[in-house]
Amino acid sequence: MTTDGFVPAGTEIGFVGLGIMGEPMARNLLRAGYSLKVHNRSRPALDRLVSEGATAAHSPAEVADGADVAITMLPDSPDVEAVVTGDDGIAASLTGGSVLIDMSTISPVMTRRLAASLAARDITMLDAPVSGGQQGAIDGALSIMVGGDKFVFEACRPIFEHLGKSITLVGESGAGQVTKACNQAIVAGTIQIVAEALTLASRSGVDPATVREALLGGFASSKILEVHGKRILDRQFDPGFKVRLHEKDLKIALETAADARVPLFTTALLKQLLTCLVAQGHGERDHSALALLTEELAGAAA
Amino acid sequence: MTTDGFVPAGTEIGFVGLGIMGEPMARNLLRAGYSLKVHNRSRPALDRLVSEGATAAHSPAEVADGADVAITMLPDSPDVEAVVTGDDGIAASLTGGSVLIDMSTISPVMTRRLAASLAARDITMLDAPVSGGQQGAIDGALSIMVGGDKFVFEACRPIFEHLGKSITLVGESGAGQVTKACNQAIVAGTIQIVAEALTLASRSGVDPATVREALLGGFASSKILEVHGKRILDRQFDPGFKVRLHEKDLKIALETAADARVPLFTTALLKQLLTCLVAQGHGERDHSALALLTEELAGAAA
Repeated sequence: MTTDGFVPAGTEIGFVGLGIMGEPMARNLLRAGYSLKVHNRSRPALDRLVSEGATAAHSPAEVADGADVAITMLPDSPDVEAVVTGDDGIAASLTGGSVLIDMSTISPVMTRRLAASLAARDITMLDAPVSGGQQGAIDGALSIMVGGDKFVFEACRPIFEHLGKSITLVGESGAGQVTKACNQAIVAGTIQIVAEALTLASRSGVDPATVREALLGGFASSKILEVHGKRILDRQFDPGFKVRLHEKDLKIALETAADARVPLFTTALLKQLLTCLVAQGHGERDHSALALLTEELAGAAA
Repeated sequence: MTTDGFVPAGTEIGFVGLGIMGEPMARNLLRAGYSLKVHNRSRPALDRLVSEGATAAHSPAEVADGADVAITMLPDSPDVEAVVTGDDGIAASLTGGSVLIDMSTISPVMTRRLAASLAARDITMLDAPVSGGQQGAIDGALSIMVGGDKFVFEACRPIFEHLGKSITLVGESGAGQVTKACNQAIVAGTIQIVAEALTLASRSGVDPATVREALLGGFASSKILEVHGKRILDRQFDPGFKVRLHEKDLKIALETAADARVPLFTTALLKQLLTCLVAQGHGERDHSALALLTEELAGAAA
């Protein structure tokens, strides 16, 4: 497959972070014909991609050395900060005119700070967090919410098109992360209220599967009622998207809200419920396990 | 139009409660060919229906006198209790073998109590709350969630089919009201979290309309993000469904939950937010005005 954009196949891309999301994303770029240099803390994913044609780098600085575009896909704000600005970080070797695309889900405040410091050296940063989960990453079918310069966004569009289906420039630097924070708040809130409703139904002697069916199609209907509602009924709590990552994402949403002086009552409660769920040992389960918390708090069924 | 069910056109139906919902519902039954006796506290709606062929009754007892089926569409649990079991109530004149269909949104606990007391006199009660709003009532396109005896439900299906499109027997007596409570919790929760997300976006300098567009289609998508999200962006807070009625419905959900010993953290918070919104003078506005509350609590935009 070739691309006709400003960053055509053959463009050298550095990629840091080959986790559950990063590995299949890097693989899609490799298959699209990009020249890929990769770095990861642990070996197995690195070795797999090298065996498929990528070049291994021993540090973020080495990944970015000579790259036109560097991509990061890391767990949290401190990871991105360390990989970009730390010793042997990406910023140490990216040259003027190059682009950093951070596809991690991190704080918009941190994003804007990093973008400003890179801009001083003529490096453009795009924040481009994604949704769609591991399957979306594998299928190249992610939703990508981008913040940053419009021209650079258009230049990088061919890269995004190998990774996602729905690609939106939502605004200036940080806007992608703000949008992702909104997404994560809505998803958590909808799962929790669906979980409360289905628990209320079953504990009141009404079949929750029938309730779900009756409510789909009306104002209560949502992608969450459809997918996560089904997961709750089927007791399918393997991730999916992990509780502890969703907890982190709501921490970001609340920090962003605090920065903007917006009180988010429901989001704050949801963060507490996710913290509770992690404390109960459910951190590695799918976020639909919020239903387990409501059930556990309700005690044994009568 | 004629019907082929157990309660064919011509069946005598008593109807109490000609409010914003009840009046168009009664009108649809009248147009379907049922013989309709109506009662209402205030005159205008009563007079309109009488001019269209209904018979006026001076009390609920008179409405039910000789009726095979009595229908109630009233604001709250105490209203239904008074109209059914009070002096000159429906129960005083309904005869054995007849059916009471309560289409109000009331407490499942009250519903089960009334159903049991009527059953002792061989009167069957169906709880059949609706969703779909005034427009759904006018169009005969309501969603109807029914609890009660399966045979009686089937016998009454022709009546329901003149009032709604999605008609579901969800379980035994009270199950319709439990389902409605679940519906109202999910709707309120989804509106609130969408309101928080859109407020977070706009106060963080990101266009909320773009955020809504970017999130539709992903896991954050819902009927509420579509309809009420649009209302919030367009500042359209005319009802629709009123804040004060939604507050009442969450009171019912929480009473039902307390009865079943289920702690509903988010639903409880939503009830408080709706109470706050009523206290701020927004009780007559559409429930999407939850966004106004978040905005007001956030103070003037920076």
